[in-house]
Amino acid sequence: MTYCLGILLQDGLVMASDSRSNAGVDDITSVCKMEVIDVPGERVIVILSAGNLATTQSVITELREALGKAGADDLHAAATLYDAARAVGGMLRVVVARDGAHVSPYGDATGSFIVGGQIGGEAPRLFRVYPAGNFVEASARASFLQIGEAKYGKPILDRALSYGSPLDEAAKLALLSFDATMRSDLSVDMPIDILRYETGSLSAANRTVLEKSDPYWRALSNAYGEGLATLVERLPRPPDWRS
Amino acid sequence: MTYCLGILLQDGLVMASDSRSNAGVDDITSVCKMEVIDVPGERVIVILSAGNLATTQSVITELREALGKAGADDLHAAATLYDAARAVGGMLRVVVARDGAHVSPYGDATGSFIVGGQIGGEAPRLFRVYPAGNFVEASARASFLQIGEAKYGKPILDRALSYGSPLDEAAKLALLSFDATMRSDLSVDMPIDILRYETGSLSAANRTVLEKSDPYWRALSNAYGEGLATLVERLPRPPDWRS
Repeated sequence: MTYCLGILLQDGLVMASDSRSNAGVDDITSVCKMEVIDVPGERVIVILSAGNLATTQSVITELREALGKAGADDLHAAATLYDAARAVGGMLRVVVARDGAHVSPYGDATGSFIVGGQIGGEAPRLFRVYPAGNFVEASARASFLQIGEAKYGKPILDRALSYGSPLDEAAKLALLSFDATMRSDLSVDMPIDILRYETGSLSAANRTVLEKSDPYWRALSNAYGEGLATLVERLPRPPDWRS
Repeated sequence: MTYCLGILLQDGLVMASDSRSNAGVDDITSVCKMEVIDVPGERVIVILSAGNLATTQSVITELREALGKAGADDLHAAATLYDAARAVGGMLRVVVARDGAHVSPYGDATGSFIVGGQIGGEAPRLFRVYPAGNFVEASARASFLQIGEAKYGKPILDRALSYGSPLDEAAKLALLSFDATMRSDLSVDMPIDILRYETGSLSAANRTVLEKSDPYWRALSNAYGEGLATLVERLPRPPDWRS
């Protein structure tokens, strides 16, 4: 499995992905599922991947090789982030057409992606590319997109995140969403790649890789655990229901 | 879908179930999935149901009809809660053997159950009965069991619940777990049947049905939402990751 999350905000974007790749619980490894394609001052395109690793790696590699060649797949030439999402979906179709029939006796060849970023004067945008290569766009009303193991990490976002949340708040919530997921699903694991993108900055520099031992990660997770216990203790007690 | 939750505590048990039954989103109805079979002062057996409604209703009806007949299915005669779980699993096998082949062209005939309670001098016990009729028991180390739509409601329990939690705290957490689930899954809905069982009481009286408009439910959900927003705001801010 995998867990990837993209958040669209008034102030920008938060993009995050875990690192676990597995073919069964007895065959796990660590990979980076966040690809950043940027031209500082001009464009930032962040692609998060889930699904068949051979497929998603091929898609990313082919897109990298197409850079600067001015074709429909050239993310350096894409005029809008919609065009970038189309290029990702199109390349996914190419790779699945090539490998799908060969892979299907062994498992699922498909993949899915979250594509977020900003190109030139456009506002930041965020898309989810389905295994079919088509895609949907996030909006103020549906401001986050998830792929992979999405359920455990959703309640904290539903409860506390909105389009108007400041970038730092959204980054905290993204990490708490990963924390919730990793507590229940062994197939999602650290390190976490996380990027905060500020609207108009056209820079992907504010990103890091959080290991389990990272002091900020530990402080956040501990403070949340303690704060939640206190919060629950202070909530109103259920009445006695004996009639 | 359905969401049912049983919690085993040092102090007793919390049992809760939602009310939505659906055959597609265009065919929904409200049913009670909590069955209480008790002899005050002697035994309390609470059965929560998920899965095919025709199957689970037949299992409960047949078990009700077996009461007082002193057979292996007689929950009034069960010497331990293990025997009660065996009776539930056995009756599930009987019903599936009768209906399964007829139902399978239309869908899944199976069901699952959570069985919790206390019989005489035994400590309170909690079991999860699988569609195969076999079952597992909760313990201090794995103190809650879920059936149906389990994922959205799990993080809050993983984070804040333990075997040593007081009964009232566990009841709050159970309701927050339902709240999280209902925000993401239309196939789980109110009213919620909830029962707090205190060790040694041998009484099932402390239970209620919570409607959406219930003042305690609304106070709890609102206080949690506000408290969580404050908590997240006060968590340490992520550092600037630009190197």
